[in-house]
Amino acid sequence: MSAYPQSLTNLIKSLSGLPGIGEKTAARLAMHILNGSKEAALTLADSIIQVKEKIHFCSICFNYADQDPCHICSGLERDKEVICVVETPDDLIALENAGVFKGTYHVLGGALSPLQGLGPEDIRIGQLIGRIKEGGVTEVIIATNPTLEGETTAAFIADQLKDMSVSVTRIASGIPMGGDIKYTDAHTIKRSLQYRTKL
Amino acid sequence: MSAYPQSLTNLIKSLSGLPGIGEKTAARLAMHILNGSKEAALTLADSIIQVKEKIHFCSICFNYADQDPCHICSGLERDKEVICVVETPDDLIALENAGVFKGTYHVLGGALSPLQGLGPEDIRIGQLIGRIKEGGVTEVIIATNPTLEGETTAAFIADQLKDMSVSVTRIASGIPMGGDIKYTDAHTIKRSLQYRTKL
Repeated sequence: MSAYPQSLTNLIKSLSGLPGIGEKTAARLAMHILNGSKEAALTLADSIIQVKEKIHFCSICFNYADQDPCHICSGLERDKEVICVVETPDDLIALENAGVFKGTYHVLGGALSPLQGLGPEDIRIGQLIGRIKEGGVTEVIIATNPTLEGETTAAFIADQLKDMSVSVTRIASGIPMGGDIKYTDAHTIKRSLQYRTKL
Repeated sequence: MSAYPQSLTNLIKSLSGLPGIGEKTAARLAMHILNGSKEAALTLADSIIQVKEKIHFCSICFNYADQDPCHICSGLERDKEVICVVETPDDLIALENAGVFKGTYHVLGGALSPLQGLGPEDIRIGQLIGRIKEGGVTEVIIATNPTLEGETTAAFIADQLKDMSVSVTRIASGIPMGGDIKYTDAHTIKRSLQYRTKL
């Protein structure tokens, strides 16, 4: 790499640190930035700085936000009586992009995982209970992933909330829309039969 | 995308502008930057700015450089009597990484291409002739690509220099090391026979 000027070497090194970006790709990206307009480069640099400086956790739902409370928690059109519990901000984004849920969220920041040593105190279950204790919440939809950790987390949260005057529901899991039964794993088929609905 | 906070949306938009980076990849990179250390992010942002502010063309060889003359042209250990002519800075990097050439370079910034409307005045042939007229150059190695444009450019430069007291050579072209004759194209085989060397 010493064949590159120092500042170009530095940029390639920084870009190589990003996930899925090898040294050759980093070099290609660096050359693109170098050959591209100064505006585009400065905009990119500034947006990186802005993200680190402006984005924080929403103090209510713990989603990433550049205002507090976040635009969802502070949204007048959102139903504050329903809280959808997710593991990560990415899950929240996926649900938002589906565009059907009009309630608010609660981002746990992970799922219970004895293997990774993640217990109830490591994810934001206490904060969820706190929100419910404040009142005004009628339903908690648990949208953790249908994985061992996600299911365990859902069961744990349901147990924690069982004595509170709030209905706890779990997102449906089964064969995905457009999916093919013959290519669907046994666990999913079992689940889809177990939770079959009346037509 | 509206589900993301504004500054995150901006970063994703900027990253999507890079070659081979789609919106999903950009989102993954943005999340990595967001979750990563502030130092790493600021280093990346700074290195982008540095590249745009510090990197210029070397006034002698027209390679990218953050000093003028570049570290090769100003290198005391480099042989100033030999100039290796390349099409692009990337070609120069490849030659440098091979680690065998100890002379200096001249980056044309392209090759003659009637189809793309690139004539002798569009690439730095005049500057090359200027360097040779200054004297002290004994050999010019033409390392343009063995393509139609590269060969044309090599022939043109050789013609321009024929009356000057400098030996003009062309990099060898043939079957690549580790290559397989039965998978080698006819042009390459023809060239390898035409320029066969005595053992």
